[in-house]
Amino acid sequence: MHLVAIGGSDAGISTALRARELDPSVDVTVVVADSFPNFSICGIPYYFSREVDPWQSLAHRTHADLEATGMRLRLDTLATGIDVSGRKLTVRNADGSDDVLAYDELMVGTGASPSTAGIAGIGGQDGLGPDDGVHVLHSMGDTFALERYLDERDPRTAIIVGAGYVGLEMAEALTVRGLAVTQLQRGPEVLSTLDPELGSLVHDELTRNGVDVVTGARVGAVTRAGGRLTVAGEDDSGSFARTADLVLVVVGVRPNTGLLTAAGATTGPGGAVVVDERMRTGLPHVWAAGDGVVTHHRLLGVTYLPLGTTAHKQGRVAGENAIGGDARFAGSLGTQVVKVFDLVAARTGLRDLEAVGAGLAPRSATAVADDHKAYYPGATPISIRITGDTSDGRLLGAQLVGTRGAEIAKRVDTFATALHHGMTVEAMSDLDLSYTPPLGSPWDAVQVATQAWARTVRGSAIPVDAH
Amino acid sequence: MHLVAIGGSDAGISTALRARELDPSVDVTVVVADSFPNFSICGIPYYFSREVDPWQSLAHRTHADLEATGMRLRLDTLATGIDVSGRKLTVRNADGSDDVLAYDELMVGTGASPSTAGIAGIGGQDGLGPDDGVHVLHSMGDTFALERYLDERDPRTAIIVGAGYVGLEMAEALTVRGLAVTQLQRGPEVLSTLDPELGSLVHDELTRNGVDVVTGARVGAVTRAGGRLTVAGEDDSGSFARTADLVLVVVGVRPNTGLLTAAGATTGPGGAVVVDERMRTGLPHVWAAGDGVVTHHRLLGVTYLPLGTTAHKQGRVAGENAIGGDARFAGSLGTQVVKVFDLVAARTGLRDLEAVGAGLAPRSATAVADDHKAYYPGATPISIRITGDTSDGRLLGAQLVGTRGAEIAKRVDTFATALHHGMTVEAMSDLDLSYTPPLGSPWDAVQVATQAWARTVRGSAIPVDAH
Repeated sequence: MHLVAIGGSDAGISTALRARELDPSVDVTVVVADSFPNFSICGIPYYFSREVDPWQSLAHRTHADLEATGMRLRLDTLATGIDVSGRKLTVRNADGSDDVLAYDELMVGTGASPSTAGIAGIGGQDGLGPDDGVHVLHSMGDTFALERYLDERDPRTAIIVGAGYVGLEMAEALTVRGLAVTQLQRGPEVLSTLDPELGSLVHDELTRNGVDVVTGARVGAVTRAGGRLTVAGEDDSGSFARTADLVLVVVGVRPNTGLLTAAGATTGPGGAVVVDERMRTGLPHVWAAGDGVVTHHRLLGVTYLPLGTTAHKQGRVAGENAIGGDARFAGSLGTQVVKVFDLVAARTGLRDLEAVGAGLAPRSATAVADDHKAYYPGATPISIRITGDTSDGRLLGAQLVGTRGAEIAKRVDTFATALHHGMTVEAMSDLDLSYTPPLGSPWDAVQVATQAWARTVRGSAIPVDAH
Repeated sequence: MHLVAIGGSDAGISTALRARELDPSVDVTVVVADSFPNFSICGIPYYFSREVDPWQSLAHRTHADLEATGMRLRLDTLATGIDVSGRKLTVRNADGSDDVLAYDELMVGTGASPSTAGIAGIGGQDGLGPDDGVHVLHSMGDTFALERYLDERDPRTAIIVGAGYVGLEMAEALTVRGLAVTQLQRGPEVLSTLDPELGSLVHDELTRNGVDVVTGARVGAVTRAGGRLTVAGEDDSGSFARTADLVLVVVGVRPNTGLLTAAGATTGPGGAVVVDERMRTGLPHVWAAGDGVVTHHRLLGVTYLPLGTTAHKQGRVAGENAIGGDARFAGSLGTQVVKVFDLVAARTGLRDLEAVGAGLAPRSATAVADDHKAYYPGATPISIRITGDTSDGRLLGAQLVGTRGAEIAKRVDTFATALHHGMTVEAMSDLDLSYTPPLGSPWDAVQVATQAWARTVRGSAIPVDAH
């Protein structure tokens, strides 16, 4: 049995690891487009902040670690074509030569590429690129290009287009590096994956740390003149233009689907390749996982929501199934967390707008609860916004913002675990959560928030299943 | 409707708060034996470490806060007798006079008293007490007595009998106060609610901070001579005797049941009053909750496991039911956490021994996983011991020890929530937990541990339900 996995990031490596773990007799080849298998893309901002050094430590596992599992790595090798009926994969080697790999099972984890959101003047053959100071950030190649630019050109000012997870982390990193950062956000508030009420807390943290945040900024084009870059577009008051030494565009990704669609796979939400919960593409012996495929969401059904955690899980499922197992991806809840300077923001499940889109009857309420007993030093408030279903009282989602050290990241996990099991908001008071005064309260902040939601909903006479 | 709640601690106050929250027309009286309603007993060690100052800030709510909810407080009032058929409660006031309170519903939350575990020479009329330097620690009265002793006698050395939660917290507090502390533990390792393998990490932390820990020390008697106290007993090598200026005995509690048993209630495990999951005592219109009653445990059935978190939940259930509701205590999992110097130790569910006692077929495995990505500064290892059922793969319990700041307290909550829903160990890999490099890993430490358990069990060919 020869399993070939395409992609050296989360999905491909997870597939290979799982297959080797479950059956060490399986022959596994991983085809990696660059020289950096199993690198932690999520860690790149911390390389720029110089908290991670050297860049090699960003590897989840070293090349040697990976080979010790018995998998074979083909680095600097681009997968170029799948012969589905012949079970053959054509690849292009670094020297330009082509090879054909016979496989019994194939897993495609080609991931996604950075979007430039239709901004004029950047990318492609003629547009501005890294040498001009216009960067994207998705691969180690992008990382080296940006680091080189920072080293050689010593830019003093930067414009970051986008204020999602990577945008916020890079705003912190470049600020720490001593650049004056302007952050442009298309929507009304930064971190648009949270409700603006909570996003504004992140906005305040950026401002407190010297980041110039501009919301409602719809970027149209980037131009270069006299060694300086100008980002121009429209905002709520008309038009805007900002100039800086460096522009970083981090506005999301689009799935890399060409290899699979050329082989006959279909695409769905977000233009991603359709797979079922077993990571089957519909093409015989061809599996797919990661940022290139659709996401099964426990509350939304099939959607597109590329996340590293999901890619790990999907890859693990694909690895098990490719060697004859019958695993099922249990579904995402879109759980996410980000540290922005001294603040941590997290979410899981749905917000009102998303729930309404799914035909539900949501209602949200925000509570502020201390992370631990106020009498013990260092207590800090956590803002927790609960979204529940007013028809059956079911928990639909939670958003949390608080200071680093307030155990936000693992408090969102309690909500994620509750959501996984379809708990009602009120039933969360039944959970036997831990308590000691330096680290919690007899009713944990999580339960303070769910009880506050229940009072809000009960107060407005909407029936809620009490137990 | 007049609801009388006996007890000013977690159960009594929770009952009163819940009744007033759900129906503000209910007349609620809380009978409190001392002058300190709603004080956080769990916070007392931090008063001694001087992290909490003044002592008044230990109140979860002030007297005024409580009265603002509309409840009536009768302080310094001891409940002395229940006339069940007449629905009357006799109380003794501070001046020695008696009163009779008519009630429609009565909730008894008389809690527990510190045990002295049969140690000769202490307690009672003739034994050594606070004035002699022998202390227990369960009430604000105990707190004031110990603080007075520390202030007035300036002891330089202390022996703490017991190394459970309060014993460990007090070892830290007295060390911080400058005393040389000897900690005596009856069993083979401190914090006997954890397996010795994990308890030893706590032991090391105590030693590192200068606490002289003696395990296997079965205390027989305390004697006083020349102003010094000697604690003597047997240990594994024969007998031991240690001398100090102060002795603190913190070896658990026994339920205060006299009031209810005199009225006809029955007792069960641990000598605690039997209640059902609705907090009914079997006596008409008499409810009970808190440290004086048995605990419904989701995995063990009816047991005795007094915890503040449980008392809050039971009190809330009693308050709802006393005014005509139909709430049910969903059951404890024994979730607990303690901070000991810079270490945090937590557990939820069962350990092997407890599971075997419950007729299950457990197996435990320990993994060590970083709290966050090792490449990001400050990563620390968490020891996580998973107990699962080898017959059906079900999660039975988890124990965690790691450094403060490693989000141990809320990671145990993920396990507690999973246990609440009867998840299998392997299914925990399906949970969509949060990840960002400074605060976690793509597979959270929780999942690293459950996956390690699954590998251990699979490696030994015990069948496990994979999904």
